[in-house]
Amino acid sequence: MSAPGLAVVRSVAELRRRVAAWRAAGDTIGLVPTMGALHAGHLALVAAARERCRRTVVSIFVNPKQFGPCEDFATYPRPETADFAKLSATSAELAFVPSIDEMYPEGFSTAINVSGIGEGLCDAHRPGHFDGVATVVAKLLIQTAPDAAFFGEKDYQQLMVVRRMARDLDLPVEIVGVPTVREPDGLALSSRNAYLSADERRLAPHLNRALREAAAEITGGAAPAPVLERAISALTDRGLRVEYLELRDAATLAPVASRAARPARLLAAVHLGRTRLIDNLPVPPPAPSRS
Amino acid sequence: MSAPGLAVVRSVAELRRRVAAWRAAGDTIGLVPTMGALHAGHLALVAAARERCRRTVVSIFVNPKQFGPCEDFATYPRPETADFAKLSATSAELAFVPSIDEMYPEGFSTAINVSGIGEGLCDAHRPGHFDGVATVVAKLLIQTAPDAAFFGEKDYQQLMVVRRMARDLDLPVEIVGVPTVREPDGLALSSRNAYLSADERRLAPHLNRALREAAAEITGGAAPAPVLERAISALTDRGLRVEYLELRDAATLAPVASRAARPARLLAAVHLGRTRLIDNLPVPPPAPSRS
Repeated sequence: MSAPGLAVVRSVAELRRRVAAWRAAGDTIGLVPTMGALHAGHLALVAAARERCRRTVVSIFVNPKQFGPCEDFATYPRPETADFAKLSATSAELAFVPSIDEMYPEGFSTAINVSGIGEGLCDAHRPGHFDGVATVVAKLLIQTAPDAAFFGEKDYQQLMVVRRMARDLDLPVEIVGVPTVREPDGLALSSRNAYLSADERRLAPHLNRALREAAAEITGGAAPAPVLERAISALTDRGLRVEYLELRDAATLAPVASRAARPARLLAAVHLGRTRLIDNLPVPPPAPSRS
Repeated sequence: MSAPGLAVVRSVAELRRRVAAWRAAGDTIGLVPTMGALHAGHLALVAAARERCRRTVVSIFVNPKQFGPCEDFATYPRPETADFAKLSATSAELAFVPSIDEMYPEGFSTAINVSGIGEGLCDAHRPGHFDGVATVVAKLLIQTAPDAAFFGEKDYQQLMVVRRMARDLDLPVEIVGVPTVREPDGLALSSRNAYLSADERRLAPHLNRALREAAAEITGGAAPAPVLERAISALTDRGLRVEYLELRDAATLAPVASRAARPARLLAAVHLGRTRLIDNLPVPPPAPSRS
């Protein structure tokens, strides 16, 4: 049985004390890093953690280092009380909610960069974003020392960056990707969906629809380039400003010009008014030819 | 009693098995990261580790990421058998000697940067050097998970970069600086001293002598700028090409124009023929005035 109620911990020292006590009791530990404003996608991460690990830590930290100077750090939603209420209804035992000073004390000057996989796509439009992600996730993994950490596939490039960083630094943790949770109309859940006006909300599912259609065409054997061009045109015609819509190798995120024998991933970012939305879908390799 | 003989371990997995067994027995662990070519300076690190920790791991890894393209990576000495013999005569239980592939497997793409403290001085002349140091030391600290790690003060900027990196990433380890070991004539021990010709070896102690005289003058109340200028001229006149010779804050490595109330450090790098030598000395703050 989990302890009644959710422990809210705000210091690294107290987090370590609690985790050490669990370790001493032989418990395994799962970490779900979040920026709060929790929705069903986050709760699916908590459920995935509970399936694999005896104890679940959910971190809530709106990380200034992963926001660009013109991005929404100041206005990003921070509904702390509602977040704690949502977590209290889950199997999570501990919410780790550090202040900015706890994470980045005076004189903080270390940054982690992942080249290749952390370049292009979102990085091209949010320079420094993945350095901020890799740095804060490395800190959270070192602070918590979990057996596994859980990330949504919605942020697919982030998942790949974190997995590469953890492997490269020999962090003894499994990085687990959890499938995207969607609204009934296909829109991927995101804390930023709250920014959408009613009109924008009606248009937003076109992103997922365009990706599904393009993925199906490419899976059916169509050459990727014209399919992607048509998808971009269709989205643009409906008023979604396309930042990128690309086919990439699912493991390395290297550009894929034609369908190869390896799994691929179709990734996109669009702007709807002042809101930036991302989504992605798998494109499986062709079935082996029987000819 | 230490185990008879030295265990030589070449994989991270085996290192972790051995360290976990020590941990299970309640032993504390000290790590001494080296690039091999061991001398009495390294052995002082091993002795310092033994004073504080029950078990000592010495890593030997000539880290390609901390050498510039025109530096001596290919020719850096690698006397493995002699190094193992030297360690066998110490209290160290384990030599961790990974291959380059073990440390940087295919696709490795993560780098750690420490700004401020890792800029200027050696960094100005060896761009990327401290990124390579910070990255490999972070890996060694995460692989070994020691209670303390030991670094020579001879590489003072490196010590400061490592200490900042470990603090910023929340690595649960104490970074211990160990005083420089010197030849009787004052030359700081370095694996690179082996590069010196007989003539160069006779000139090399002038580096330490110039630093000692300058540190004494500044400690005695002289204004730093002219003292540093004279020291640079004296070294240049004797054929030592000065890369830098600077007074810095001992904790932040920020430039120090005049003697302040905080401890300072006098740091220098010179070239003697094809060999680069570094050294540094403390400059204590002025005694509190009685007037």
